[in-house]
Amino acid sequence: MAKQTGKQLQSQIRRIFGKHVYGNMYGLNELQITDVDFLTKTVLGSAKIGEMHIVELVTKKFQGYNNVAGGVSIIALIEESHIALHTWPESSYATVDIYSCGEKSKPEAAYKYIMEKLSPKKQKFFSVDRGNSSMS
Amino acid sequence: MAKQTGKQLQSQIRRIFGKHVYGNMYGLNELQITDVDFLTKTVLGSAKIGEMHIVELVTKKFQGYNNVAGGVSIIALIEESHIALHTWPESSYATVDIYSCGEKSKPEAAYKYIMEKLSPKKQKFFSVDRGNSSMS
Repeated sequence: MAKQTGKQLQSQIRRIFGKHVYGNMYGLNELQITDVDFLTKTVLGSAKIGEMHIVELVTKKFQGYNNVAGGVSIIALIEESHIALHTWPESSYATVDIYSCGEKSKPEAAYKYIMEKLSPKKQKFFSVDRGNSSMS
Repeated sequence: MAKQTGKQLQSQIRRIFGKHVYGNMYGLNELQITDVDFLTKTVLGSAKIGEMHIVELVTKKFQGYNNVAGGVSIIALIEESHIALHTWPESSYATVDIYSCGEKSKPEAAYKYIMEKLSPKKQKFFSVDRGNSSMS
């Protein structure tokens, strides 16, 4: 049997499509980002918009800091990978991660949905390939 | 009262230290990355090494593909933010995210721990600032 090249071997590996979009959001409404219900609905809404499917969602409300109510963390395990939202009301700051696999989901639309709900005065946005196509 | 400059206003905002290290790992042992117990222990071990504190950990085992056992997703909500591990045995592939806030935690050490347990033949590693210090 002829020896296979790296390229041939790679072509036998199932291709995984994975896209991770994430951002740091500044200048948020302090009160809004302490609201677990609002933030949970926002994450659930983003999954729907992005055509992702929630397996399990976990929330944690943290203790306050300097008389400002505590921040919130929400992470959702989705069929397509995960969504994570962390907030720091004392800094009017939050970060969002949407990492979805498969060709059908729309992580950018999900991110945009959260951004519109939180209305940051400023943000830094990142997008990275988490699939296995760029191995070599 | 004198008008405050942007720099002065920014200096009043509490600084959040946040570091997100993540990677795409190729050429993994297919059997090992279907093993929910092994992977859960690996994530728990990484949190310990990285001086992070688990709030809640969620696992999901997916259905198999082409006679290869299914992949696994593990996401951990930690006091410091989150850890996520997703595996695709049919592609000998996994991705790891360790995102931790605070000056005490050691996300690189946690990542290295997972890397040593999974022994990828190749990987792509990324590191990004998720804190609010680089606003301007």
